[in-house]
Amino acid sequence: MSELRIPIEQWQNLTAAEQAQRLARPGQAQAESLREKVAVILSDVRDSGERAVLNYTRQFDNPNATSLRLDDKQIQSAIASLDDHVKRAIDTAYQTIYRFHEAQRPEDLSIETAPGVQCELRYAPLDAVGLYIPGGSATLPSTALMLGVPAQIAGCQRVVMVSPPNQQGELPAALLYAAKRCGVTDILLCGGAQAIGALAYGIESSPAVGKVFGPGNSFVTEAKQQVSQNDSGCAMDLPAGPSELLVIADDSANPAYVAADLLSQAEHGPDSQVILLTPSMTVAENVRQELIAQCTQLSRADIAEQALLSSRLLVVADMNEAITISETYAPEHLSIQTDNARELLPQLTQAGSVFVGHYTPESGGDYATGTNHVLPTYGYARNYSSLGLVDFYRRYTVQEASQDGLRQLAEAITTLADVEGLDAHKRAVTIRTETQRTESRL
Amino acid sequence: MSELRIPIEQWQNLTAAEQAQRLARPGQAQAESLREKVAVILSDVRDSGERAVLNYTRQFDNPNATSLRLDDKQIQSAIASLDDHVKRAIDTAYQTIYRFHEAQRPEDLSIETAPGVQCELRYAPLDAVGLYIPGGSATLPSTALMLGVPAQIAGCQRVVMVSPPNQQGELPAALLYAAKRCGVTDILLCGGAQAIGALAYGIESSPAVGKVFGPGNSFVTEAKQQVSQNDSGCAMDLPAGPSELLVIADDSANPAYVAADLLSQAEHGPDSQVILLTPSMTVAENVRQELIAQCTQLSRADIAEQALLSSRLLVVADMNEAITISETYAPEHLSIQTDNARELLPQLTQAGSVFVGHYTPESGGDYATGTNHVLPTYGYARNYSSLGLVDFYRRYTVQEASQDGLRQLAEAITTLADVEGLDAHKRAVTIRTETQRTESRL
Repeated sequence: MSELRIPIEQWQNLTAAEQAQRLARPGQAQAESLREKVAVILSDVRDSGERAVLNYTRQFDNPNATSLRLDDKQIQSAIASLDDHVKRAIDTAYQTIYRFHEAQRPEDLSIETAPGVQCELRYAPLDAVGLYIPGGSATLPSTALMLGVPAQIAGCQRVVMVSPPNQQGELPAALLYAAKRCGVTDILLCGGAQAIGALAYGIESSPAVGKVFGPGNSFVTEAKQQVSQNDSGCAMDLPAGPSELLVIADDSANPAYVAADLLSQAEHGPDSQVILLTPSMTVAENVRQELIAQCTQLSRADIAEQALLSSRLLVVADMNEAITISETYAPEHLSIQTDNARELLPQLTQAGSVFVGHYTPESGGDYATGTNHVLPTYGYARNYSSLGLVDFYRRYTVQEASQDGLRQLAEAITTLADVEGLDAHKRAVTIRTETQRTESRL
Repeated sequence: MSELRIPIEQWQNLTAAEQAQRLARPGQAQAESLREKVAVILSDVRDSGERAVLNYTRQFDNPNATSLRLDDKQIQSAIASLDDHVKRAIDTAYQTIYRFHEAQRPEDLSIETAPGVQCELRYAPLDAVGLYIPGGSATLPSTALMLGVPAQIAGCQRVVMVSPPNQQGELPAALLYAAKRCGVTDILLCGGAQAIGALAYGIESSPAVGKVFGPGNSFVTEAKQQVSQNDSGCAMDLPAGPSELLVIADDSANPAYVAADLLSQAEHGPDSQVILLTPSMTVAENVRQELIAQCTQLSRADIAEQALLSSRLLVVADMNEAITISETYAPEHLSIQTDNARELLPQLTQAGSVFVGHYTPESGGDYATGTNHVLPTYGYARNYSSLGLVDFYRRYTVQEASQDGLRQLAEAITTLADVEGLDAHKRAVTIRTETQRTESRL
């Protein structure tokens, strides 16, 4: 562990090229082979349905799988075995997440845009949605809450959760409890690209959903992108990438807290990226010491260490420079550990989620502050939104013109139709306004 | 024209397979060759920037192009030459579109999710957006308004419009007027995949934008999808497909109006799809006669005729059946031409935009009611939203816990971190709550 070397660098001493390199995301392989492998799996699921999904599940997850479902007894018995304090923790997280997302409930809008012309914006929940919960080493009840709670509030009629079973064909009890808490209507024991195929195309026992949500590995991400671009009509939530945290800290920061936060991001995976920006060399040095000291105590120390190798401790000239760098980088998670953190918020908008002050660890948002932890990574925070309640709705518009209302707009519409050379567009108006003058032609 | 045969079919007399076929969208070729051609163009633009874009513009649009820009004098002189009544029409459309989109201005949200834990949802306008306006046969000032007005209201700092020039290197005066009206900050004379590349990757004279909007041909659509899936980080608005209109009409409908609306959709392109659902055979027959009569008078009669060949006049058992079919089809545009149209709205939510009653032609929404005409087609209305003001913003979250607030949530967070096997997530909390008890460790 003593070999863990994390350089501290002064931003102003770096060349422009070095500065760009320090903020570069780790490359994401976009291998053609991945694209082809996923296309084969999706096409197989589309053609052969449940049977294909079951075959892949046997191949990748549970060699003895005979069904994609747990029966009610299995679910109830797993939930009954769950520790009460875990249930309470899930309940607490459920409540804060519910409160924050319920406050986002969209309201229909209706205004008169011209006399006699009413325009409306309406919201309808998506009928059926699919929630992907990764399996593998970690149990992720929190992700089930982040996806399941907004689906429940929106009132999606069918909420299909997919997650790969372990080799015994089980899902974690905490995950099942969280899913039931959110009113998930169906649980399929499958993962990977085949699970996305099952959601997007439907299988015999579970019709297609309209949108797939949730994080996943490169197969899952590629599959989400493919189904959202082919004619399945299925939408997807966000492009996903490795997790990131950028901390801005000044002299008022506690280096032990900063290091704990950086490590909590680093332990996610070897490709996680963590960055510290501070105007204080002393803070940087103390954070480094804390990183080395705390890292040794982690069960996932190996992973965190790998992530730290591509991470940055950067000493900046002042807070303004820190802000500029953060806005350029656009981190998934931004932690501001300064006494005046709230005052800096108006200048720090390029992030997926912002953690204000010394007592708001990033892991709080992962679980229980109430915000959603499905966030744009990899610089996508510049252009994509954090997952929210409205992502579980469709917006559509409604308009109604009275006879007089149409007459008000007739000249504008017919003139623009002329300009665009679209006769029938014009006639659809004139045939109505002429009729108004001559009564009906019927 | 007399050969134009449009069959009327009774829904109940069709087999399930025939019913499905009648509602099937025309196939969209997803040729691998298109994907490759677009990838080559994008990669060329990425590598060679402005020079590559100019080369493609010479190849496809204006053989003598030497610049991607008009100078101010050219723009002013084109606008000065524009008829006043066209300017007035654009002004009228601008105002209704502005009113409807301004009413959609999102409001930041802040709530306490637990004592001492504040969560916020905030909106920030996208910094830089790209607006694609198709060229070719039609002049489309209306599309410039539909994309430019919300960008202006949101307050995007850079709004780059791209549109292919004609062979003389010009853009239509009406388009330039509309662009200036919306405060477009830069206009690039280019189209096709190369224009999307210029927006997403940036060129020497115009840095990259964060999101591309607007309709286009298959090259443009493919290019938007590719840049939104590779590491450019650029987002896109909606998947695009051929335009569609479904009309529900009962005995109260005027067949001449219905036919005029169907034709105004049909004239968009040979692959446009129009569908009539009516419980009345008489209405269906009268609409057919009107279609034949009105079609002959259109300048784009050939295009409309081709579109009508794949269109449907369907007689249904009753209005409930019409509603079920429409909800299944999920049209881009839905016109309800019945006296009780408004009463049916709660049952008709699967559409991009709904036109209520006898005096709301679909072409009204294309230009001037105020709703946006960039809408989900091809069944995407089931899962995608109509373009709206919020598409020009990013949503992100902010949270702040006090010492007490963190203590409130500490057990939930640490328990869930335990369940998920993430030590450092737990430590980021305990290191703070321990410090609270022992004062600072510094």
